[in-house]
Amino acid sequence: MTKWPIPQPMQLALDAARVAGARGEVPIGAVVMKGEEVLSVAANRTRTPPDPTGHAEIVALREAAVRLGSERLIDCDLYVTLEPCAMCAGAIGHARIGKLYYAASDPKGGAVEHGARVFEHPQALHRPEVYSGMGETEAAEILRDFFKARR
Amino acid sequence: MTKWPIPQPMQLALDAARVAGARGEVPIGAVVMKGEEVLSVAANRTRTPPDPTGHAEIVALREAAVRLGSERLIDCDLYVTLEPCAMCAGAIGHARIGKLYYAASDPKGGAVEHGARVFEHPQALHRPEVYSGMGETEAAEILRDFFKARR
Repeated sequence: MTKWPIPQPMQLALDAARVAGARGEVPIGAVVMKGEEVLSVAANRTRTPPDPTGHAEIVALREAAVRLGSERLIDCDLYVTLEPCAMCAGAIGHARIGKLYYAASDPKGGAVEHGARVFEHPQALHRPEVYSGMGETEAAEILRDFFKARR
Repeated sequence: MTKWPIPQPMQLALDAARVAGARGEVPIGAVVMKGEEVLSVAANRTRTPPDPTGHAEIVALREAAVRLGSERLIDCDLYVTLEPCAMCAGAIGHARIGKLYYAASDPKGGAVEHGARVFEHPQALHRPEVYSGMGETEAAEILRDFFKARR
């Protein structure tokens, strides 16, 4: 059997998640790409400094905006290891991300295919194309191992 | 006729909105309070540096978290001049804000009483008490004047 390959940016996001876990942050990683160029690689950073908004997606979007010199990340795509929450989905809309790729879905906190379904309202100011499932086994395993070790 | 008074923190938020408008940012202001103490006063800051997440609420929550030394703003309240969007409502949940006060409602971009209604899903990890309408005339006027001047 040939396993379908995980896209390279998602591999980077998975690696960033692992690094975050090792320093005690919830292991979720995100990468912003513009075509073949990596604009930012980030992971959850809610503890040092304390930041309730420090999810991987938010950190990655902010860094990419500074790098591009624009609050709108036109023609950029976001890869993240877990389905974005309402905060992050909203930010993805504000940033005008073209394609959103996420690995594992999150029935508890996700707001793309669950809960608030942020992109599915008439008010949604921008809707990215959404793809999911690439690397979901790895992403879920990283999270499971992290929480198992802390119990 | 006696006009119902605008709470002092909302006055601060309205003042912050006016200042933001004067420097070309969309004039929305936010204030985080812990009891009688002002933890942060912020306004939209999406342009310098470019930041798609730089809404007043996000800026105010981040500053308050650093000030408190905690990503959870326990026993804190947020005042904002416009109904929060999905991103900001999500952040308010992550920060565990106790009471959310907003001035004007926003049928187009709001996600508290409109659209994604972020706090009204079983998945919402935290629901603040929500109060609206204090200072709504002033808040709406500040926004209207701003956009009228730019047309």
